[in-house]
Amino acid sequence: MTLLGKRIAVVGSGAVGCYYGGMLAHVGHDVRFLIRSDLDAVRRNGLVIDTKGEVIRLPKVQAFATAEEIGPVDLILIAVKTTANRELERLLPPLIGEHTALLTLQNGLGNEEFLSARWGAERVTGALCFVCINRTEPGVIRHLDHGSISIGEFGKPVSERVRAVAAAFNEATVEARAVDNLAGERWRKLLWNIPFNGLSIAARANVAEVLADDDLRSLARSLMDEGLDAARRLGHDIPDAFADWQIERSASMGPYRSSSMIDFESGRPVEVEAIWGEPLRQGLAAGATMPKLDALYRIVKFLANR
Amino acid sequence: MTLLGKRIAVVGSGAVGCYYGGMLAHVGHDVRFLIRSDLDAVRRNGLVIDTKGEVIRLPKVQAFATAEEIGPVDLILIAVKTTANRELERLLPPLIGEHTALLTLQNGLGNEEFLSARWGAERVTGALCFVCINRTEPGVIRHLDHGSISIGEFGKPVSERVRAVAAAFNEATVEARAVDNLAGERWRKLLWNIPFNGLSIAARANVAEVLADDDLRSLARSLMDEGLDAARRLGHDIPDAFADWQIERSASMGPYRSSSMIDFESGRPVEVEAIWGEPLRQGLAAGATMPKLDALYRIVKFLANR
Repeated sequence: MTLLGKRIAVVGSGAVGCYYGGMLAHVGHDVRFLIRSDLDAVRRNGLVIDTKGEVIRLPKVQAFATAEEIGPVDLILIAVKTTANRELERLLPPLIGEHTALLTLQNGLGNEEFLSARWGAERVTGALCFVCINRTEPGVIRHLDHGSISIGEFGKPVSERVRAVAAAFNEATVEARAVDNLAGERWRKLLWNIPFNGLSIAARANVAEVLADDDLRSLARSLMDEGLDAARRLGHDIPDAFADWQIERSASMGPYRSSSMIDFESGRPVEVEAIWGEPLRQGLAAGATMPKLDALYRIVKFLANR
Repeated sequence: MTLLGKRIAVVGSGAVGCYYGGMLAHVGHDVRFLIRSDLDAVRRNGLVIDTKGEVIRLPKVQAFATAEEIGPVDLILIAVKTTANRELERLLPPLIGEHTALLTLQNGLGNEEFLSARWGAERVTGALCFVCINRTEPGVIRHLDHGSISIGEFGKPVSERVRAVAAAFNEATVEARAVDNLAGERWRKLLWNIPFNGLSIAARANVAEVLADDDLRSLARSLMDEGLDAARRLGHDIPDAFADWQIERSASMGPYRSSSMIDFESGRPVEVEAIWGEPLRQGLAAGATMPKLDALYRIVKFLANR
């Protein structure tokens, strides 16, 4: 199985959608971008991906204003912010044919469940994107660091289609791996996002500031402990040492400002439910007590929505 | 026993010290104010207390620059902010004679213990001030609302000296009552201050905003539950209904901004240890688990000290 010759749609043409879709288009895949605000600029100038210094130009991009113009495809890359998930109810149906697969590149928990409830679990795959990326102007993506992607089925081990997508990304020079336990991988990533994105809003502290302050570093670690307990109750066996390593590796990030912090300070929607609300609900449902996450969630939610 | 003819010193001549000391001076008590920044203004113009519309003028006030000039007194009203407690080690000794009593008018927990450890538990009494008060300019105090004071011994039931101080305040038209369980009263007040002052900093939310937001109101109530548990373990039998009533009565406060919020937004020291740190430590020592207070304390401490 291969993605070559298949139709791919990208829904949500911010930095993530343009980067991952653009890298596939660059090596010859049939990628159709559904674009809202940047449509004219992308039709005129195409996409430019400045990836760690190397500049990839895609002068001709298949850019569409509506999903109806794109029509049914084989694979949909979903890269809208989770706060806009309800818009997918309107955007996805024209793209979905009998065998269309969905791949959410979105953050946090609850996105596979959202897609599954509406279009069937058998269509749903998901990916974690480990990438530092910005949209600097319409159609121009600046890829600063990292970029790897972990792709898995929703609630199932690796499948042939997941391997095919991972292979396509690897051929496009995007480091990709197929993973058996997507939900477990999401929890591993959340162990970091919950405290560091959360404290970047509640305490206005960047990564270096959290690590340098005894109180916040300790709070970050105990939020990780709550997450470890929840993840284990949900069947994801993550060792304590992983949380320790998450703290240690953060030291090299310096005064990194989380995506949530940037969203918050720019007045854009913060992905409150995907990063804090849904992990809290899933953890509580599995019998975990998560009082510190509960407090952090409520404070972040209030600050982000005021 | 009476306070008449006794020497009273006021240490910390902000709004609280000037108001409570000034009301005693107004009815003829021998009150000596230790004043730092406002000394010249008070020496020149005395004190003006605008109390709910009525203006009380004290044109001649005993104002001193140093504790040495005041010398030993019978009673010391302590009204410095708790964040300046270490300065008391320098300010109090010249004021303390063999029988000098100390009355802390300060917020939160730990102040009686601080005084007791240095000058002996037998000297120490404390009071809770329920008052809305401002210093509008040097020597001018604006008393907006409330004003009652609850006075008790440190770790003992009401004594004759506590009754005498309460009587003196009542004669000075400051509603005062003598209380048997000062620490219990402090915990009752903290049940409100912990969530509402805390969320006023961590979530930048005034009282009305906390109450109007389902998430924050619920968080406030569960912080109260943690406080109730701690208080009970420490021997203070506060009923659940008291916490409910604390929430309900807050509705009439409107968009009230806590003193901590005003301090924080003005860049002044916030009484972090007295309001959050010491209750947390006392609760933990008594076997309570206070994870939400722990998280709130660390966030508030970071924000207040950055």
